[in-house]
Amino acid sequence: MDDAEDMARRLLAGERAALARTITWAENADPRFAAALARIYPRVGRAWRVGVTGPPGAGKSSLVNTLIEKLRARDETVGVLAIDPSSPFTGGALLGDRIRMEERTTDPGVYIRSMATRASHGGLARAAVDALDVMDAFGFDWLLAETVGVGQTEYEIAGAADSVLVVLCPGAGDGIQAMKAGLLEVADVLVVNKSDLPGADQLADDLEESLQLRALSRQHRRRPAIVPVSAHTGAGFDALFAAIEAHRAELERGDLAALRHEKRVRQVRRVVGERLDEALFGPAGRTEQAVALLGKSRTPYDVAEELLGSILASTPRPRT
Amino acid sequence: MDDAEDMARRLLAGERAALARTITWAENADPRFAAALARIYPRVGRAWRVGVTGPPGAGKSSLVNTLIEKLRARDETVGVLAIDPSSPFTGGALLGDRIRMEERTTDPGVYIRSMATRASHGGLARAAVDALDVMDAFGFDWLLAETVGVGQTEYEIAGAADSVLVVLCPGAGDGIQAMKAGLLEVADVLVVNKSDLPGADQLADDLEESLQLRALSRQHRRRPAIVPVSAHTGAGFDALFAAIEAHRAELERGDLAALRHEKRVRQVRRVVGERLDEALFGPAGRTEQAVALLGKSRTPYDVAEELLGSILASTPRPRT
Repeated sequence: MDDAEDMARRLLAGERAALARTITWAENADPRFAAALARIYPRVGRAWRVGVTGPPGAGKSSLVNTLIEKLRARDETVGVLAIDPSSPFTGGALLGDRIRMEERTTDPGVYIRSMATRASHGGLARAAVDALDVMDAFGFDWLLAETVGVGQTEYEIAGAADSVLVVLCPGAGDGIQAMKAGLLEVADVLVVNKSDLPGADQLADDLEESLQLRALSRQHRRRPAIVPVSAHTGAGFDALFAAIEAHRAELERGDLAALRHEKRVRQVRRVVGERLDEALFGPAGRTEQAVALLGKSRTPYDVAEELLGSILASTPRPRT
Repeated sequence: MDDAEDMARRLLAGERAALARTITWAENADPRFAAALARIYPRVGRAWRVGVTGPPGAGKSSLVNTLIEKLRARDETVGVLAIDPSSPFTGGALLGDRIRMEERTTDPGVYIRSMATRASHGGLARAAVDALDVMDAFGFDWLLAETVGVGQTEYEIAGAADSVLVVLCPGAGDGIQAMKAGLLEVADVLVVNKSDLPGADQLADDLEESLQLRALSRQHRRRPAIVPVSAHTGAGFDALFAAIEAHRAELERGDLAALRHEKRVRQVRRVVGERLDEALFGPAGRTEQAVALLGKSRTPYDVAEELLGSILASTPRPRT
């Protein structure tokens, strides 16, 4: 696979076009991707991966933007993956923000990549993790992955990071309120954005109370810090970095290797699932067979069973 | 599988406890589900399935609530599946709405079921379609599936319906604006909710313009109707039903059988994927093997390849 080898070499030499291209391979499930990844894999694992999630309108992209500024001021490099359809990174929303984003891309210490939320059958989370691996190997110090914290796949992507920031803001309506429960579960740091708006203190108090209730009701991992910030004014970002660094230090003293290993096993599951789906239902697959079987008015389970029986060699038979 | 046979019999006899239980089996990937579904499958396919999707705060649940009222006034029965974390159906948000929901459940012509957005590995869309099949066999005239139109999995679930309503409302912020593009793609009917609020006409005009631009730029299926409604006052619901019925009539004259068949093939893919994931990574699976292989610092792709090689009999080998 000469293409892949050449691409990997160029990527490790710091060529941005190769970085972009390799991520596109991941996105398209291009067969060259696996070979390229194998070449660069020894360099994966040095970046700190931060998931940024929360409801639409919470200001995740502005927060990411300010994080980039602050990191660059510290002379650290950043790769950004945006999988949020409401994000200016992905081409929507506020023009002002979008322009600020594009300015960044002339800075060699920043790379911004968006990925469509409506990618191939089940492949979005897999491709997102691949993209983070590629950016990691490229050599960025930090990786930021922005997703909307309301979709199952998007949650999964944020959860693939080392530290998960959940961004909320005051006055964002009833819907948001209801999402809090699920979002609290995944948070390593709770960010109360737009801290200059009325209601921010109240929101922080509410979150504090929710965390206390949760701590009472069951055993939980480390309690997330609550950090008020204003992505607009930049207030609170020192405390935010301190919270992220504290989380990082704690993981590095403890479970980081195990957690990352577990996340890699999850990626193996995604790759296996996608490969099998491709093998069964791709161009050379058995879609026709499935269609014919369904024609006999069997349930999807019956058809699945028959297809599985015809391809599996030694796997333990699924329970029925 | 006597349990499953008994459950199917009770379900077809109209017993609600059996309806609830069978959906729980689907949700938990209980092995009895396939057998129960096989028993009731001849009764699947009579209900009209409506997906209701849109951003948080657009008023999807209120719309569903009003749809239920209107359908009951026409003496038609309704099953509702709510997979929206911001929905009062799923236990969050507005207390008033939630109480109104629960009142409904004393009406034998209505069944409301919520499903957690953070269900098992990849199983949410599969379980949602199973639940709709079960409600369909139970005998409801209409099925409504409410999801948040920002997540990939949630889009997929709405797209499994026969008619997809995309609900938007005026003044819901910048984030919403940016989601419109993706939402337009899946809409069979565009519902402008809160039509009594300022900005509703403007939103309808904007949508009209977006549809025109889209029609110019490429070939597309039937252009969705734009229907302003107020779930609060009930205004516009006659037009909304007319739009749904028009879409239904068009499908029934044309592609309905083919489209439903295609959707069943997609469900086969989900079942196959989940079964293989269970067989490989479930309790009797090869997680240990994957972990050990990863320990040799191979990429997820290498590990996936090796696991696949060890289980596949005759499947065409995935491209590498």
